[in-house]
Amino acid sequence: MHRDRFYTLAASCPDRTGIIARVTGFFAEHQGWILESSFHSDEGNGDIPARYFMRLEIKADSLPFMLAELRERFEPIADELRMDWKITDSAVKKRVVVLVSKQEHCLYDLLARWQARELDIEIPCVISNHDTFKGFVEWHGIPFHHVPVTAENKPKAHAEMQRLIDETRVDTVVLARYMQILPPVLCAAYPGRILNIHHSFLPSFVGAKPYHQAWQRGVKLIGATCHYVTEELDQGPIVEQDVIRIDHSDSPDDMIRYGKDIEKTVLARGLRYHLEDRVLVHGNKTVVFR
Amino acid sequence: MHRDRFYTLAASCPDRTGIIARVTGFFAEHQGWILESSFHSDEGNGDIPARYFMRLEIKADSLPFMLAELRERFEPIADELRMDWKITDSAVKKRVVVLVSKQEHCLYDLLARWQARELDIEIPCVISNHDTFKGFVEWHGIPFHHVPVTAENKPKAHAEMQRLIDETRVDTVVLARYMQILPPVLCAAYPGRILNIHHSFLPSFVGAKPYHQAWQRGVKLIGATCHYVTEELDQGPIVEQDVIRIDHSDSPDDMIRYGKDIEKTVLARGLRYHLEDRVLVHGNKTVVFR
Amino acid sequence: MHRDRFYTLAASCPDRTGIIARVTGFFAEHQGWILESSFHSDEGNGDIPARYFMRLEIKADSLPFMLAELRERFEPIADELRMDWKITDSAVKKRVVVLVSKQEHCLYDLLARWQARELDIEIPCVISNHDTFKGFVEWHGIPFHHVPVTAENKPKAHAEMQRLIDETRVDTVVLARYMQILPPVLCAAYPGRILNIHHSFLPSFVGAKPYHQAWQRGVKLIGATCHYVTEELDQGPIVEQDVIRIDHSDSPDDMIRYGKDIEKTVLARGLRYHLEDRVLVHGNKTVVFR
Amino acid sequence: MHRDRFYTLAASCPDRTGIIARVTGFFAEHQGWILESSFHSDEGNGDIPARYFMRLEIKADSLPFMLAELRERFEPIADELRMDWKITDSAVKKRVVVLVSKQEHCLYDLLARWQARELDIEIPCVISNHDTFKGFVEWHGIPFHHVPVTAENKPKAHAEMQRLIDETRVDTVVLARYMQILPPVLCAAYPGRILNIHHSFLPSFVGAKPYHQAWQRGVKLIGATCHYVTEELDQGPIVEQDVIRIDHSDSPDDMIRYGKDIEKTVLARGLRYHLEDRVLVHGNKTVVFR
Repeated sequence: MHRDRFYTLAASCPDRTGIIARVTGFFAEHQGWILESSFHSDEGNGDIPARYFMRLEIKADSLPFMLAELRERFEPIADELRMDWKITDSAVKKRVVVLVSKQEHCLYDLLARWQARELDIEIPCVISNHDTFKGFVEWHGIPFHHVPVTAENKPKAHAEMQRLIDETRVDTVVLARYMQILPPVLCAAYPGRILNIHHSFLPSFVGAKPYHQAWQRGVKLIGATCHYVTEELDQGPIVEQDVIRIDHSDSPDDMIRYGKDIEKTVLARGLRYHLEDRVLVHGNKTVVFR
Repeated sequence: MHRDRFYTLAASCPDRTGIIARVTGFFAEHQGWILESSFHSDEGNGDIPARYFMRLEIKADSLPFMLAELRERFEPIADELRMDWKITDSAVKKRVVVLVSKQEHCLYDLLARWQARELDIEIPCVISNHDTFKGFVEWHGIPFHHVPVTAENKPKAHAEMQRLIDETRVDTVVLARYMQILPPVLCAAYPGRILNIHHSFLPSFVGAKPYHQAWQRGVKLIGATCHYVTEELDQGPIVEQDVIRIDHSDSPDDMIRYGKDIEKTVLARGLRYHLEDRVLVHGNKTVVFR
Repeated sequence: MHRDRFYTLAASCPDRTGIIARVTGFFAEHQGWILESSFHSDEGNGDIPARYFMRLEIKADSLPFMLAELRERFEPIADELRMDWKITDSAVKKRVVVLVSKQEHCLYDLLARWQARELDIEIPCVISNHDTFKGFVEWHGIPFHHVPVTAENKPKAHAEMQRLIDETRVDTVVLARYMQILPPVLCAAYPGRILNIHHSFLPSFVGAKPYHQAWQRGVKLIGATCHYVTEELDQGPIVEQDVIRIDHSDSPDDMIRYGKDIEKTVLARGLRYHLEDRVLVHGNKTVVFR
Repeated sequence: MHRDRFYTLAASCPDRTGIIARVTGFFAEHQGWILESSFHSDEGNGDIPARYFMRLEIKADSLPFMLAELRERFEPIADELRMDWKITDSAVKKRVVVLVSKQEHCLYDLLARWQARELDIEIPCVISNHDTFKGFVEWHGIPFHHVPVTAENKPKAHAEMQRLIDETRVDTVVLARYMQILPPVLCAAYPGRILNIHHSFLPSFVGAKPYHQAWQRGVKLIGATCHYVTEELDQGPIVEQDVIRIDHSDSPDDMIRYGKDIEKTVLARGLRYHLEDRVLVHGNKTVVFR
C-alpha cells in the first residue's frame, strides 16, 4: 500500500533476453523509483505462445516528467519489445459500474469498502433489474438505475444498460450477483473489463443452482469464482477463487448462506487485483501479480 | 437451517451415565421430534470439574404443549440432573445492541445479514462514540445513539450506555470494532452476553495495535478472535477464530485491510453460534456446537 | 481420543421420533457410559428416502456383558427400528491392505502413522504393480506382493490381487495412488470398503492427468478427493476433500508436487474416518461424523 | 520448477534507484536468460534500516562463462551496490543434516521427499539422541549417529554433535522435532542455517507443551512455525507458519496428532524455501520469495 502517487506499468510481450533490463534501465536512466515490480515468463500451451508479463509501480514524483511524456518516451521501448502495455496513474480513480439483482451481500460489501476508501474508485451508477436497493444505493449518493429485464423487453433493456454503461465511460463493470445473462454484444464491448462472481468452484457446477448441484454430489467444500465475462457462460478467464468447508448436515440453503461469505470476499479480491492492474489475461488464463 | 418453529434446549450438568437417555426419553414420551442434537463430555482441567454439555432442537408443533408448559415439565429432569439450562423459541427474535466506533466493515456486514434476514434478530439500537454512521444506521430504520466517551466524561458516558442497553432489554451486546474499553460494571452486568471481535489471533498480540505487533514479529499469518468480554482485557472465553496469510511485502496498513475481512467473518460466525445457543461457556473455554 | 477400550455403534434407520431415546435408553439401562455420540437426520433427495444416522462410542467395561451379548441384546432394538447397523470393538485392530504404484508420498505417510500407532491397524500386506517399494515395505515387517498389470495379463493379475485380498480377510483396501483401474468384480466385492485418493477436487477433472487439466483451465486452487471406489470411475461417494492455493507461476509439475501434500493428508483423514466407523454411506453421498 | 541447470542470485543491499537495472543489465549484456525474478523493498523499522532484496534464477547455459567467472564478474557490481550476496548452482546439491528424537512424522516426510528427489539434497547423516530410527535411516543408505544427551554428558554430547556437523560440511541443519535445546555455541556457529519446527503458532505458546497451553486457553486453531534457531528459545526469524482448526471435543492428545500434519508440512515448505535460497533474513524477520 503506497500513499504517494505512482504510475503502474502493466505489460506483456514475446519472451527474449534483456526485457527487464531494457524496461528498468529506462526508469533508472530517469531516476525513476520502482516501488514494486513483478515479472513472469509463461511457457505457453499448445496454441498459446510463450509470453513475458510484467507489472511495475513507479513513484510519480521521482520522474522528471509527467504521465503524457512518460508514455511518449516509453513507446519506442514498447514497440521494440512488441508489447501490449498500459500505464495508469494512481491519482486517477477508476470508474466502476455495479450491476445487482436482489441479493445484498456483494453490494453491501463493495459499498463498505468504497465508503472506507479501501476501494478507492468512483461508482458512477448502480444498475439493477430490481428496485430493491434503490434507497440504499442513493443514500450513499450514488445514482441507481432500475432496468427490469423480462422475456419480452430483453433487447430494449440490454440497449438501455449498454447506453448507461457507455455514457459513464467506465473502466470496469462488476456483476455483483446480477442474475441475468449479459448479451454477447455487451460482453464483446468490454473484453477483460466485466467481472462476474460465480457461486461455485469452477469448472465444477457451471450454470444454474450450483449449490444444489454441489449438495447432490456430496462435496465437502464449496466455493466461488471471480472471472472475466466472455460470451461463453462461466467459461471466461478465472481471476480468483476460494472455498469453504461444509458437511453432511448442511442443506442447500445452508450452503447458499455460507457461500455468500466466500462470494463477496472472492469478488472483492478479484476486483482489487483487476483495478490495480495486477491481472493480465493470457488466452483463457490470467497472470495475477498479487 | 430449519424453516419450522423449534425450541432449543442448551444445557450442561455434572457427567454421569444415562443423561442423553433421560433427556431424549422425555421428548420421545411426548412425540417430540428432534431436529438436531449435539452432546459433549468435557473431562475438566485442574480446578474445572468434568461436565456434560448438550444442545437439542425440537420441532415446536411436534409437542402437545406450549413453551411454558415444556419448561415446567422439563424442570424436574433438569433438577434431577443438576443442570444449568435454558429453552429458547425460534419464533422469538433475539435482541442485539451493536456498539461501533469509526470503522465500517463489521457494521455493514452485520446490517447486510440483518437486512437479508440471514441474521434474524431485532436491533433495538446502535450505540457509537462517534456519529459517523448515524445516517447509515437510521436509513435502515434503526435508532442510533451517539455517546461520546472522553477522559473527562467516562463515568457519565458509561452510565448512559448502560441505561440504553438496559432499557432495550437486550439479549446480547456486540462490540463491532468498538474502540473503547467497557467498564467492569458493564462487563459484569452481562456475563457471557457481550461479544467482542479482537483483531489478532489471541493469545498473541493482546491489547493495542495488534497488526503492528504482528508486523514487528514477522508472522506469516494474521488473525481475528471473537470472544466474550470479561473484566480482563482480551482474556475472555474464545468463541471463534480465523487467520489469513500475509507475507513480507505487506505493511501494517495492508494487514489492517486484510484483517478487516477476517474480523467481520469471524464476528458474524461467532455471533451466529451465540444467538443460536450453540455456545456454552465452561470456565474460560467454550463448547461450540456448530 | 480414548485410551480405554470402547465399542462403536454405527447405524442408520428410517427417521421417526424416539430413536435416540430408544438407543441411549438401552445403554442407560445397563449403565453404559457413552463417550461420544453423533446424530444426523437426512431429509433425502429425490429417489433417496429420508434416513436417520447415528454413531456412539460406549466404554466397554461400563457394560455388564461382552461384545457378543451386546450385539445379541441390541438386535431386537435394531430390528424394531429397521436399522442397518454394526458394533465394532476398539480392541480389535482393523485389517487394511494398501495398493501402491511408484509414487511414495501416500505410502510413506501411511506407514509413518502406522509406525507411530496413530493409525492403529494391521497391514497384512502391500500390493503393487511395481517393485519399487519392496525393500521399504519389507523393512517395516510387512509382506509385499508384486503383481504387475499389463494389457495382456489383466484378468490373471486381477484374480491374483483378489486372491491376496480375500485371503487376508481385510476390512478395507486403500488405493494409495495405485495407478490402475480396479476391475468391476473387485469393486463389487468390497462395496464401501475400497478407498481411493483422486488427485483433483472432484467433480472437476475426472480421469487422467487432472493437474494438467487444472493448469489448462487456469484454476487458482487445486485439490484432492478421498472417495469410495464404485464401478464408475471417480464417481463414488466422497469422504473427504481439501485444496491448496496455486498461481500463474506454477507449472503442472509444481502442481503435482504441491498436490502430493494434499493427497496424503486427505487420504489419511478419510481413512481415519472410515476406520473409526465415522463414515456412513447414503446413496452416493456420505455422512461423516468427525 | 526448472529442469535445466540454473544459477540463483540471492542478495540484499541499501535501497536506491537503479538496482534492478544495474543487476539485470549485467545479465542482459551477457545474454543471460532470467527464469525467475523477485524484488522487494523493505522500508525498515526502528533500528532496522531500509533495504532492498532480490532473487534471480539465470539459466546456466545462457551465459558465456562458468560459475567462478560469473561470481568474479558480478563482484564489482555487488561492491558498488554494497550487497550481501551469494550465487548458488542448481547442479550442486545442498547438504543437510537432520536431527531427530523419537517422533517419526517429520523424518518420514523428509525422507519421502528426498527419496522422490522432490527434495534434491544430500543427507550426509541423521543425528539423534535416541536410536529409534537407526534401522529406518540406515535402510535408506544414510549414516545414523546416536548421540544420547543427558544432564551429565551435555558438553561432551554437544561437542560430538558439532564435530559430526562440522565434518560433513553441511549447508543446513534441520531440527525435525529434535527435543533438545541446542547450545549457544552451536546456534552461533550456523547463523541462519539451522531450521527448527516449533509446534505452536508463534509467538503464542513459547516453550514446552504448547498443545497443552493451547488447550488450556481454548483456542479454535492450532499451528506450527518453522523458524531459524537463534540463542533465544523460539524467538528466531519466522520462515513459515500454518494452522489447523480444532474444537472443544479435541483433547491435547488429539491436538498433538493433528499438529503433526501441520508440523511436517510447514517444516517441508520452510526447508524448501531455505534450500532454494528464497529466504533472506532481515533483522528478526524474513523475506520469503515464494
